[in-house]
Amino acid sequence: MTDRCPADEPPAQPSKTPERLWRELLGEQLRSARHGRGETLHGVAHRAKVSPQYLSEVERGRKEASSEIIAALGDALGLTLLDLTTGVASRLGASSASASRGGFRLAA
Amino acid sequence: MTDRCPADEPPAQPSKTPERLWRELLGEQLRSARHGRGETLHGVAHRAKVSPQYLSEVERGRKEASSEIIAALGDALGLTLLDLTTGVASRLGASSASASRGGFRLAA
Repeated sequence: MTDRCPADEPPAQPSKTPERLWRELLGEQLRSARHGRGETLHGVAHRAKVSPQYLSEVERGRKEASSEIIAALGDALGLTLLDLTTGVASRLGASSASASRGGFRLAA
Repeated sequence: MTDRCPADEPPAQPSKTPERLWRELLGEQLRSARHGRGETLHGVAHRAKVSPQYLSEVERGRKEASSEIIAALGDALGLTLLDLTTGVASRLGASSASASRGGFRLAA
């Protein structure tokens, strides 16, 4: 039997964090904007002419919204595509920064 | 016959510029990145495991790429989703700034 210390072993994914997908980040951004306005799925979905079930799936990153639906959901939330892409970019920036901090902590 | 001057008529869309869609901006961003690397459609498409015809349609904003395809195309071009969304946001920022300038010019 070897007496190996697990801490000496390289992690399964040394430096690469799981890749976030566009639809997941967009969904988080839409949900966060809706919550920020204190709105229900029903209200936003109604204005965007989609079903509340569909909006819920988009918000959870389960459904891939077309560009036209993204625009309609943005409109319903008072957000432009610039707002949405900037929001997604800052979510990604924040998550990559926290992954880096995690990396430093593990390496220390 | 009326003698109406077309210049006196309000434009069809007074102050609103045509909304750019996510897939159009993303396509421009992907094409620009590919050109920046001096690469062919074929080379990038091969690495991303899509057909050159499909990539061409995505670059022209004709096809809606899934989040997985967006990630694969980004990988093939050495770009993260953060790079892509930041690039799209700055394209939108630039176009909305020029639309504002146009608006001021028309209003003067």
